Order: sequence, then C-alpha cells, then structure tokens
Amino acid sequence: MGKQGMNREAGLRVRLVQMEVLPGRPAENTATILHGIREAIAERVDLIAFPEMAIPGYLIADEWERDAFVRECEACANEIRDASRGIITVFGSVGVDHSRRNEDGRVRKYNALFVAEEATFKGPERGPYPFVIKSLLPNYREFDDSRHFFDLRKLALEEQRTVADLVTPVRTSHFRLGGVLCEDGWDMDYNVSPLSLLGAHNPDLCINISASPYTLNKNNKRNRVFSNQASQIGAPLLYVNNTGIQNNGKTVFTFDGASCVYDAHGHVVAHQTPFEAGALTLDIPDPKATFGNPVPLKEDTIADVYKALRYGTQKFMDLCHIQRVVVGISGGIDSAVVAAMYADILPPEDLLLVNMPSRYNSNTTISLAQKLADNLGCFCLNVPIEDSVQLTKSQISGTVATRNDGSTLPLNLTPFMLENVQARDRSSRILAALASAFDGVFTCNANKSEATVGYTTLYGDLGGYLANIADLWKSEVFALAEHCNTSVFSREMIPRGIIELPPSAELNANQNVDEGKGDPLHYPYHDRLFSSWVESWHRTTPEEILEWYLDHELEEKIGCSENLSTLFPTTDDFVKDLERWWNLYQGMGLAKRIQAPPVLAIKRRAFGFDHRESQLGPRYTRRYKALKQSALRNEE
Amino acid sequence: MGKQGMNREAGLRVRLVQMEVLPGRPAENTATILHGIREAIAERVDLIAFPEMAIPGYLIADEWERDAFVRECEACANEIRDASRGIITVFGSVGVDHSRRNEDGRVRKYNALFVAEEATFKGPERGPYPFVIKSLLPNYREFDDSRHFFDLRKLALEEQRTVADLVTPVRTSHFRLGGVLCEDGWDMDYNVSPLSLLGAHNPDLCINISASPYTLNKNNKRNRVFSNQASQIGAPLLYVNNTGIQNNGKTVFTFDGASCVYDAHGHVVAHQTPFEAGALTLDIPDPKATFGNPVPLKEDTIADVYKALRYGTQKFMDLCHIQRVVVGISGGIDSAVVAAMYADILPPEDLLLVNMPSRYNSNTTISLAQKLADNLGCFCLNVPIEDSVQLTKSQISGTVATRNDGSTLPLNLTPFMLENVQARDRSSRILAALASAFDGVFTCNANKSEATVGYTTLYGDLGGYLANIADLWKSEVFALAEHCNTSVFSREMIPRGIIELPPSAELNANQNVDEGKGDPLHYPYHDRLFSSWVESWHRTTPEEILEWYLDHELEEKIGCSENLSTLFPTTDDFVKDLERWWNLYQGMGLAKRIQAPPVLAIKRRAFGFDHRESQLGPRYTRRYKALKQSALRNEE
Repeated sequence: MGKQGMNREAGLRVRLVQMEVLPGRPAENTATILHGIREAIAERVDLIAFPEMAIPGYLIADEWERDAFVRECEACANEIRDASRGIITVFGSVGVDHSRRNEDGRVRKYNALFVAEEATFKGPERGPYPFVIKSLLPNYREFDDSRHFFDLRKLALEEQRTVADLVTPVRTSHFRLGGVLCEDGWDMDYNVSPLSLLGAHNPDLCINISASPYTLNKNNKRNRVFSNQASQIGAPLLYVNNTGIQNNGKTVFTFDGASCVYDAHGHVVAHQTPFEAGALTLDIPDPKATFGNPVPLKEDTIADVYKALRYGTQKFMDLCHIQRVVVGISGGIDSAVVAAMYADILPPEDLLLVNMPSRYNSNTTISLAQKLADNLGCFCLNVPIEDSVQLTKSQISGTVATRNDGSTLPLNLTPFMLENVQARDRSSRILAALASAFDGVFTCNANKSEATVGYTTLYGDLGGYLANIADLWKSEVFALAEHCNTSVFSREMIPRGIIELPPSAELNANQNVDEGKGDPLHYPYHDRLFSSWVESWHRTTPEEILEWYLDHELEEKIGCSENLSTLFPTTDDFVKDLERWWNLYQGMGLAKRIQAPPVLAIKRRAFGFDHRESQLGPRYTRRYKALKQSALRNEE
Repeated sequence: MGKQGMNREAGLRVRLVQMEVLPGRPAENTATILHGIREAIAERVDLIAFPEMAIPGYLIADEWERDAFVRECEACANEIRDASRGIITVFGSVGVDHSRRNEDGRVRKYNALFVAEEATFKGPERGPYPFVIKSLLPNYREFDDSRHFFDLRKLALEEQRTVADLVTPVRTSHFRLGGVLCEDGWDMDYNVSPLSLLGAHNPDLCINISASPYTLNKNNKRNRVFSNQASQIGAPLLYVNNTGIQNNGKTVFTFDGASCVYDAHGHVVAHQTPFEAGALTLDIPDPKATFGNPVPLKEDTIADVYKALRYGTQKFMDLCHIQRVVVGISGGIDSAVVAAMYADILPPEDLLLVNMPSRYNSNTTISLAQKLADNLGCFCLNVPIEDSVQLTKSQISGTVATRNDGSTLPLNLTPFMLENVQARDRSSRILAALASAFDGVFTCNANKSEATVGYTTLYGDLGGYLANIADLWKSEVFALAEHCNTSVFSREMIPRGIIELPPSAELNANQNVDEGKGDPLHYPYHDRLFSSWVESWHRTTPEEILEWYLDHELEEKIGCSENLSTLFPTTDDFVKDLERWWNLYQGMGLAKRIQAPPVLAIKRRAFGFDHRESQLGPRYTRRYKALKQSALRNEE
C-alpha cells in the first residue's frame, strides 16, 4: 500500500460510471463525465472511473485522421483534468505526442488511460507520458487498434527501455493504482502480460477500463479471466465498460457495460446491470479482504440475445434519428420476429407492416401476416405486386434490342428471373416508397443462413436500413420467436401458424407452403455447416467437411443432431450439396453481402467488419479435390 | 561480395517475373511460378524473383484464418523449393511457425520472403527462420498486415535479440542478398530501417518483392525513394511487383507491376510495362557499376487513369465470370464514360445500353443517349418508366393504412419522393431484370462527388455490380471523356453534346437541361471541397474550411480556381452550403456508401476499405461552432 495509502477511516469509496459513450462526440461525452465528477465530489467519492475511450468513442474508424477531432479530444481531457479536485478521476481517451509520428506518418497517438488528481495528470512511475498506454492492441475481429495507436513494445524499443520498465502503477495521494485498458486484461495470446508486470509492484488497486462490445457468452469468460487476475495480484480489480452502440460501417456492435468489482480474492462483489447506463458505487474498507458477498453470475440465454438485439436496434434508430419503421411481412418467421421486436420498441402508430403478395403467396401466409399485424396492433397494409410484375414482364419479355448494324437480340425473362423481379419489386419499389411516405425506413429481415449463401435478392429482401437478425441462424430465429411469445409479450403474439409453417420464399409454384414445400435449405444441418465455415474457431472448408463426412464424424464435429445418411443417400449427393452452398457462400453470397445493410452483431464473426471477406471466387484446396475424387471413385 | 560472389564470366543473369497473382489461389499461382522457373533454368538465369505473397495473394482478408488454406500455401512453397535446382528462386508467401501463436491466438504467420537454392530454403544469416520476415507491417489505408502477420520487432523482444540482429542478408552460393518486402522499403515513418540495417552488411544485391497496388503518382515517389536506397547501399536493387487485381470486398485495387531494376548508383536501368504480366531479364556484369542506360520515367496522366480503370474493370469481370454488361445511359457524362469504357473492353454484341426516360427527361438527352449507342455500335434499348412510376404512385398515394383499433393513416408520395421512385425503378426494376435477361450484370455509374454526399439513390443509380468511376471526381470524369475521344477511340465517340450539357439528374422539372438547369453541386468548387475532406493528407473538417474561408485563403488551400465570393455572396450562404454537404457526407451519404457496390480504387482514400468510416452522424467541433457564431455575428 502506498505511503498515504487507503488508511482513511471510511476506506475508499469508488464509483464506476458505466456511461453510454457516443462515438465521435467528445463534447457530449465530456459533459456526461463532468456531470458525473460533480455528483461524485458531492457524494464524497474518492475514485471515479469512466470507460476506455470515454471521450472520443472507440469504434470510430478513420475519424482519428482528422486533426480537428484529435485536438477536441485533447481539450476535453484537459477540462476533465481541471475538474478533478478533491477526487481522483480515471478515464480513457487518446494520448497524443505531437513531437513524434505514428507509422502511418500521422501524429503519434496512444490508446490511453488518464488519472487526474488535483487538476494534474499522473502518469505511471518512471513512464514517458502523463498517461498509461494500452499495451496490447487487438487487431482481430472488429478491432483495428494498431491502425491508429502506437504500440507499447515499439515505444520500448524507441526509448531503449524494457517493456517492464514502462508498465508500472500510477501513484496517487491515496493509493498506487495498476491501470490497464481492455485487451491488456486478455493477455493469453501475447508475450507480454501487463497485469503480471503491474502485480510485481504490488499495487493497492487495479482497474481495467474497457470499450468491450457485447458478444454472446463473452462475460462468462471475462469473469473467469479477470477473477483469476485479481486473486493472483491480491488486490481488488475494478472493471468499467461502456454502454451504447458503436459501428464500423458494415457492422454494428452493442456494448453491455456489465461493469463489476472483483475483490482481492477474485470474487465478484458488485456488478452493474447490462445495457443500462448508470453508476456503481462501492465502499472498499480493506482492499486485501473479501469486502462483499460474491454475486452469482449466469450463462447467457436467448433472453440476453433478445435484449442485446432490441437494445442495439433501438440505439441504432436513435443514432439515425429514426422514429417510424416499415416492415415487409411475408407470413414467415423472420419478418414476424423482426416485426415483433419493433412492436416492442415503437408505439403501434409508428410501425407499419406491409404484406405484398404475388400470385405465389398462399392464403395461409397472407392471413398469418394479417393476424400478426392485428396482434401487434400497428398499422397494416396489403399491397399486391402482381400488376407491377406483369408490367415488368411485358416491358422486357419479347423486347428486341437492336444495334446500328441492324442485328437484333430478343430478350426474355425466365421464371427464375421473375422470382428476383418479385423480390426487388417488393423492396425497392413498394417498401422504399412506403417508407418515405410513412416518414420512416424499412427493415431488412434476412437471417445469417440466408446471408451466408446469398439465399436472398439484392435490392430485394436484402435491402433495408439495418439487418438486425442477420447474425442469427435460422434455428436461432425460431428460438427468438418462442422467446417473444413466452417472455417478451407473454402471449402468442407471433401466431403459432407462423412458427410451424415450413420456411419458404413463396416465389414460385414449387415453394407452396400448403403442400409442405419451401426452402432448399435443411436448416438443422445447413445452419451447423455454415456456422463451421463462418463462426467456428478453426474455420472449416470443404476439405475438413468432406474428411469428417468420410470418417463418419461430421455430425459430431459440427454439432448436428440429424442423421446425414438420411439427408444424403450417397457421397455424391453429399458432395453436390456441399459444393452448391460453398460456391454460393464464396461467390454470389459474398457479392450480395458487400451491398447488404449494416448487420447488428451479437456473436463472434458477424459479417462485415468482424468476418472480413475478399471476393476471391469459389475455390477448393488440392487436398479436397483429391479426397473427393477418391471418395467418388470408391462409391462407384 | 560473397566468397563465391558474382565473379562468373557472364556476370549475373536476373529475371523479375511480374506475374498476375490470383489472390486466394495457391495452386494456380504455384503453377505459374513453376513454369517460370523451368523456363528460366533453360535460359541459364541465375536468379529468378517473384512478387510478395506470390503464392497466396495479398489482399485476401480473413482467408488467413483457414488452416486448410495456410497448409496449401506451405505445400506450394515446398514444391517451389524443390524445383529450385541450378537456379536461385526468390518469392513471397506466408511463413508459418506451428510452434508459436499469433496474438489473435491462431498459428504464427509471417509475411515472408523465401530464397531457394539447390532445393533448400536459405534464411538470413543467424535468423531464427529459413525465410526473411517482413519488418514493417503497413496498417493504414487498405492494408491490414498486422491483423494476420507477426511483427519483427515483437519477435526480437520474444527472442531477446535486437532487431538489427534479425535483419541480415541471405547468403547464397553466388552472392549475399539483402531481401526486403514492400513496406520495408517505405521506412520514412518507422523507427526501423530494414535497408539501412542490411546496407551495414554490404550485400552484393538487394531485392524488394512487393504486392503494391497502383495509386495515381505512387510510382514516381517510389522511384525517388528506391533510387536513393540503391545508391546509399551501393548495390543494385531489384523491384518486383505483381499485376492483377485484389480486393477487400468493398474496394477493388489494381496492381500495375511496374517492376524495375535500379543500379548501384540509383539509376533505373530496366523496367517492365505497367499492367502487363511478363518477365524482365537483365544481365548484370558488375553490380557496382552503372550497368545500363538510365530509363526516363514520366508522371502519371489521364491516360494512366484510364488504363488502370480499364484494366481493373476487365480483371474484375474475369474474376466474376462476367461476359455481358448492361449500362443505363441517361445522356449524361458519367454513364457515357462508363459505356465507352465497356465498349473498349467488350465486343459490341456483349454490351447493352438502356435509356429509361420518365416525363422529366428531355429530348436532348434521349437523343444524345441514342447517338452514343450508335457511335459505340452496341445493343441499345429505350425502356420508359413512366407507366411503372404512375402505378407506384397510384398504389401508394391515397392509400390508407389501418390499425385494428380503427385508426387510419392516409399515405402520399411527394414530388421529392417520386424522384427516388424513378431512380429505383430504373435500376432495381428495369436494369436488374434486363441484366438477367441479357445474361449479364448492370453497372453503377456513380462518381466520387455523388458518392461523397449521397447525391444518388440507394437501390437506384447507386446499384450495380461494380462502381468503376466512383473514385473520380466529376471534373476527372470530364477529363476522362475527353481522353476517350482524343486517344482511346480517336474520334468523337462520346458526343460533344454530352460533354457540354449541364450535369443534371433530370428527376424533376427544375432540372431541365434545356433551360441550363441541373445539379445543385457547383463541381469546380465542391469537388475540391470534398477532396479536402476525403483525400487530402490533413483531412479537413468544417473547422478548417471555415477558418480558411474567413482568412480568404480557402481557394488556395483546397486548390479551387473559382472566386468563392461570386458563388457565396454572404458568409451565411457559405456556411449553409458547407453544412448542407457536410451533413450529407457524414449522414445519408455514408449510409448509402455502406450499401454501395465495390469501388474500383485509383487514388489515395477510395471509399470502402481504404477510407474506413463509422456511422457517427453529422457533427461539428466546438471550435467550428464558435467560429461560425462569431463570423455570422460580425456579418450582421
């Protein structure tokens, strides 16, 4: 414990401010922080802490390249410093060194933790800057830290000092604080462990300020890792994370906060409600002791998925100043879940559901759509597209294009082409026009299964302002529908008929739901197959899939409970199906994703900026080709 | 010079293979390389060199996370090694260390240069691996190297060795080779200089293997930098770069190759034609001497822009197996330039131009469109959209949405909404259907001015498979039109009337070109303004712009030759215009770009993966607000 350590009678009163950080808006965030500091001073708080990048926001892409923005962040940090009298303030922002350059040639920037006391910034003991530098810069998934911020290890080389020399506690009048930022606490795959280095200095207290997006089941892992760190160091660990949403253009991330306090024995003794901005205040009498009762934590469930999606959707609407929404409803499960979620967010007069039947839509789905709208109590319209589809058909089929040398080319729309004509007519002609007339936007109801293989029409059902269920497999959409009925609304808001209907696009006579026909995807298998391509840690290719199939372990490897020998009588059937969807995933599916709306991310590897993709065309390894050739030869 | 140095009678015969690298296709690239090696052996070449990442490709996004892909790259590298007998082969690929992890937890990967001789890999003297590691990992613009590859400086820390200790030449039987990769040669903003470190060892020969995308005027800078390096070290520097295209999903980059040889005095003594795959062979009698005549190099011109765009377009079509193209032509300049470029790529029977007039299109533009099609000799169609627009209007205007409580909401389409209805009708209804009937795709003709502020309709004129002029400002599109007529076709292929027409969307009665009316953008000013936001090194915001305006130096700062006092009589006028476009750039413009087609990049900061953006909403710094308040008060 520091010389003037935590020996005051009341111990230490700490407050973690789980604030909603507005990315790219330093002035607004600073106002929030200054308000928090004033309140805390009045309430005799000793230490108030705000999240990582609380001033600028975290996922702000290349906004870092604007000097005016960086200057504003610096000015805001100084205002917070000056307001920190009679209190110790910890917050994250950009640390700037105008005398040096980043490797992109721009002004040197660090992802920094600031400690302010008596209107002064206090840096680490013997450190080169009056702020703590983030040591570990994540550069995977949606993270681009090393694109904008200088690396601590490169700084050590530049300064001709060791990394250990640069990672030291900050000495305040009350205590010695081991401060780290977000990824610094996730050191498993790095050859530097900032908290171990700090632990060697026996800090009185540790803090991890974070800007950590919500990912399904991430908090449980964090609890295991951080609890272990606190007990290893033998000091309390404060974890403060922000709420709100931030995005990288193509992908929107929610931040749940879930701030908490670990005592010196690694027990969670207090935590903040996820997805709610607010402050957590705690008196720490003796930092070395267990100073509260452990709080039980739970695994994520479908309720957490719903909460995150609803939160992210609402915040994205706020960001874009959207108050009215149009949902095209087909009578199917995806649009029903989306409609139900918006009905949970908006008053019924601000939600318009539109059913747009063509000749292929059954009375079954038309009436299910109407029933859904009645249940939700919002505005509803039925706008048939048959006339327009016929107009398009007549304008193109039979038309003859000509060249100035007299040659001609008759054109024709096949039934398959007319499927896409229907889908585009609904979204680009009707929904887009209706959205403007309703003074709102229209939604994209695509799920992750469709998005993966492009089983969706560009400028058709893949249009919309936000794809808020596009990180969910079809099977997860069904689970969400059940959750809506059982928990969100506590009644059968989504008609049972919608849940029980075979999934179908109803774009041709072969997709007749009344005859039990529908999508060419067998979701219990294909969802698991696609997940292994996109989401599994060891991302599979046809090479692994075929190998596992031939070894009769595919079901187990990808977690599919179906018997594949029923689904695919022969290896040839299996291979044809595998290649069909793999070609689409890497070909047209990807081409469509490039023009898809922003995806609301909820799991690891959402499409867009998390799972980054290059159009390379469908391709197979040589080993796959050899495996396939051998397997098909054996089958003959 | 090495012990067994370049003392053979004939000197050293080197061959740089400027190959077209197919990203994501190791087997195909390896076949190209093996073929090149066989030929070179027959022609008594001593050293054959291929580009950086010649096996896997360079811009392949998260394909690096697929183990099967990485394994295939390793196997291919070993085949090249085994084929290297009687020749020294230099090539780039991934260097894998299965015993260590990257910081994302995946297998350790390096961006590596391999030297193979007598079927053996030769690594740097005293290095930990049998390959050279890229020291400087670019992590700006479109580059994501540090996302996938481990850093040399982190390796030095891990190995407890100095960086200098790890950057040493490779000793072959003939010579000591200083090998670097791409960014290693662009060391101005790094605190490590790989070529200086290598220079300290007096290598006989240096090589930079690159995967360097074409950017306007980049080669001139490269020549200055690399020429200086060669003369500093006093050894020849071979530069080998690939051709082809690679992409990051949203952004497509061309690779011009432009491989060349610098002698020990820094003179370019041989170079390869840009954008042409092929080999450059050179006999080097005495590496220390001037061994050839300097080759004059020239500045990039509009001809180079055209060449890069045409090349990139054609290669992207090849990638996507596209053989037929539909271009919607309005009679305006953008679609005319796009149509002309496709006519230069495709035979006339594979190109279909479509004019789609509504009531607002003038006979002037309709006949200019027809004249363009006649000039190009391709297929042409006139498909009016008036009936469909009226159908949409009748289906929505006057319709009443209802709720189950009996409340109603009449809907109406305003004239502004009908502008977007027209644009969407053209692209999503007509062009998309025609493209499928023509067995092709349709193009996006948006330019960078429109893309910046979203002066374009989503699912309308912003639709298409590729936006190949979207990295060009409107003024550059005009220059390209002139170039088409004077140089590409050597006749007035694009009718003069199209070039002289006022730019107009012709979506309402106020955009009547016959009355000289058109777009709300004054391109000679707005192009320069937008360029300062997007492309200039110190990316401006309204803060800088207003400050410069008030100081009467805006024209000079942004390179605008117009007199702004004529354009904006008052400061209030200026500010209103500035905020109008800034709000669109950061608001709807960005929302539209997220769903835009891939952009063919040609300059610094193409939209998409080069200029990365987060939806943060339009925003202004406090200093801008203060400047504005003060300026408007002074004006009163």
